[in-house]
Amino acid sequence: MAMLRSPLAPDHFPDLPDIAGVRFAAAAAGVKYQDRTDVMLAVMDPGTTIAGVFTKSATRSAPVLDCQAKLAAAADTASASGAAILVNSGNSNAFTGHHGQTSVAEITRSVADITNIPEARVFTASTGVIGEPLPHDRIVAKISALNNALDTSAIDSAAHAIMTTDTFAKGAMATVDIGGKTVSISGIAKGSGMIAPDMATMLVYIFTDATLAQNDLQQLLSSICDRTFNCITVDSDTSTSDSLMLCATGASDVDVAGNSDFAMALETVMLDLSHQVVRDGEGATKFVEIQVSGAMNDHDAKVHGLSIANSPLVKTAVAGEDPNWGRIVMAIGKSGAAADRDRLSISFGDVLVAEKGWVSPTYKEADGAAEMKKSNITIKIDMGLADGSATVWTCDLTHQYISINADYRS
Amino acid sequence: MAMLRSPLAPDHFPDLPDIAGVRFAAAAAGVKYQDRTDVMLAVMDPGTTIAGVFTKSATRSAPVLDCQAKLAAAADTASASGAAILVNSGNSNAFTGHHGQTSVAEITRSVADITNIPEARVFTASTGVIGEPLPHDRIVAKISALNNALDTSAIDSAAHAIMTTDTFAKGAMATVDIGGKTVSISGIAKGSGMIAPDMATMLVYIFTDATLAQNDLQQLLSSICDRTFNCITVDSDTSTSDSLMLCATGASDVDVAGNSDFAMALETVMLDLSHQVVRDGEGATKFVEIQVSGAMNDHDAKVHGLSIANSPLVKTAVAGEDPNWGRIVMAIGKSGAAADRDRLSISFGDVLVAEKGWVSPTYKEADGAAEMKKSNITIKIDMGLADGSATVWTCDLTHQYISINADYRS
Repeated sequence: MAMLRSPLAPDHFPDLPDIAGVRFAAAAAGVKYQDRTDVMLAVMDPGTTIAGVFTKSATRSAPVLDCQAKLAAAADTASASGAAILVNSGNSNAFTGHHGQTSVAEITRSVADITNIPEARVFTASTGVIGEPLPHDRIVAKISALNNALDTSAIDSAAHAIMTTDTFAKGAMATVDIGGKTVSISGIAKGSGMIAPDMATMLVYIFTDATLAQNDLQQLLSSICDRTFNCITVDSDTSTSDSLMLCATGASDVDVAGNSDFAMALETVMLDLSHQVVRDGEGATKFVEIQVSGAMNDHDAKVHGLSIANSPLVKTAVAGEDPNWGRIVMAIGKSGAAADRDRLSISFGDVLVAEKGWVSPTYKEADGAAEMKKSNITIKIDMGLADGSATVWTCDLTHQYISINADYRS
Repeated sequence: MAMLRSPLAPDHFPDLPDIAGVRFAAAAAGVKYQDRTDVMLAVMDPGTTIAGVFTKSATRSAPVLDCQAKLAAAADTASASGAAILVNSGNSNAFTGHHGQTSVAEITRSVADITNIPEARVFTASTGVIGEPLPHDRIVAKISALNNALDTSAIDSAAHAIMTTDTFAKGAMATVDIGGKTVSISGIAKGSGMIAPDMATMLVYIFTDATLAQNDLQQLLSSICDRTFNCITVDSDTSTSDSLMLCATGASDVDVAGNSDFAMALETVMLDLSHQVVRDGEGATKFVEIQVSGAMNDHDAKVHGLSIANSPLVKTAVAGEDPNWGRIVMAIGKSGAAADRDRLSISFGDVLVAEKGWVSPTYKEADGAAEMKKSNITIKIDMGLADGSATVWTCDLTHQYISINADYRS
């Protein structure tokens, strides 16, 4: 089953600025896929600080556990040496028992030997089928060639190599002027692919030539992640492999500690990539933004937003272009966060649908239906309680999602 | 779109024993449906105690709020007078603002006048579309006729009148001998109907001729509900109208306080009805029992079980007859309850699939695939941590679910 490019995909892969201090290479190792690249190596210069955010799954993969242990231990030594990231697609090396750890060790040792970077600074990720042994020998056999091919301009080939069943490669960039110097940010992601025999997994790698200490980098990344990647959902199923890493090479010689322009630029890149993941959601035909305001607090607003975004009945209504606001009332009611039926108001785009515990007297079904015909739909909820707000993003639930996940055997 | 009877339906509606002290009638009021009954009235003799469990939704319907208030207030007066339950299908009287309360008041006042039962002991429920005004006049116009038609043997007509998009009427019964006397339990339910323009809603009414004080009745009902109706899920979406009421007429003169035979018989009836709701789940072609053992505690076991049961990726794998145990690992990992990847074991029926953090050496894909071809599938999880256990029930997620909820406009 060849998948068509998502109807919600951007026109083309963006032109990402080179990030001084980081080089990329991709290769075809034949882990699972044939006739395409499936391994990427990124090598960073000494001075690079690295932060990461990973899946909270209790059954997370061997590479995730290895990255988390290394980042936790590296807080002190941080940028003394270079660093490397190796990612393969086609096999997630998850639920592979102790064999999974062996595979990670074999790969990181080989990368360390060939790149002359300490093994404690070599990170890996694997994405694809769960529970099958990773043929790490095929990857190890390519590391010399990858090392020889490293190129500052090859980030696009890296973006393609990490795809599994994505229908398009995902990239985003930003530049920001700080004190007359230009700081650049380039990021790539994969996620929510189609025809996956297992759950969608998400990998994100972002690089910048800014200078930032690891603790500050981690704090910034975690904070923005809560408003971007932690606010998207395709089907409420959490991967065992989700990984997001941010590498700051410092090559620009611009220290961005406390710089709000840099933080905003980074958030732009992360928001862009997170939206691209939703736009490539399995079977997606609609991109949905859910804005919740007036909640008791920001946490409650996010709980309501995600309850709406994860509701199969809301998602099928969106697929059917049905302005079925009763299902939104249902999803708010079940979320567990505070709600008062009679203070709630609901709009589709700028069309006020319901207020004061019932349908608005100004609402016309034809207006709601017109909003639902759009490819990009905004649902606004005002809880009418206090000042808490949050925005979350999702896609619709279609026959294609069932086809991808039920009709074709893994 | 006429819906076929669910492939998982029982052969026929069971022969329910009459319960002395309660009479039923059904009528066609034309609330929404034409050419079928859509209102049922049950009237109980003085001496009847009543307990109830209702949706926890923050946007619950006017009838639910009214029932909850009356049951809370009636704790003392309990069985001094008779009691009545009136249920309509076709309109849920939910998110109808203050008009919803007016409709409830008009109906309960009329029932009280005509049956000579205090309004505080008249309960109602409504199930169907959300957000449309309930044409309560059509219901009120039928109450005299309903009262005149009351019949102890008419519980089957009541079961049919409360159906919305159910594909079959649901009933279950049990009798138990206590001290040489027979105590009977008869119950009816509706839920998880198809082609519903709004979410599935569940209503359950159970009647017994046993004698039990209201507090004891409520405690028993709540406790069993946690192991039966609170352990089923079709699509993780919680209705604004879910109501479960248990009425004990006392006509058998058998006090069942502390009687474990009665409690077991009641649990059998409630389990049967809850399974019938799942078997009529929208688009369901497979009935799935998920047995979780070895969890840190019973609560954790239920959290894991419901995480598996609600996972779209697990449910689509079941629909596709795919023994995709990787998705079960994923669902356990994301649940938030304690799990250790390397102590976990997973079986489909009696086929051990995975253990010790990886696929079992004895597992053959053909064996797993054969289990998944069955209509009734059992998934067993041993967490390997402690003694917590729980069983939950669900159905698969199919194209028909999408068709019901997306392809047809409300």
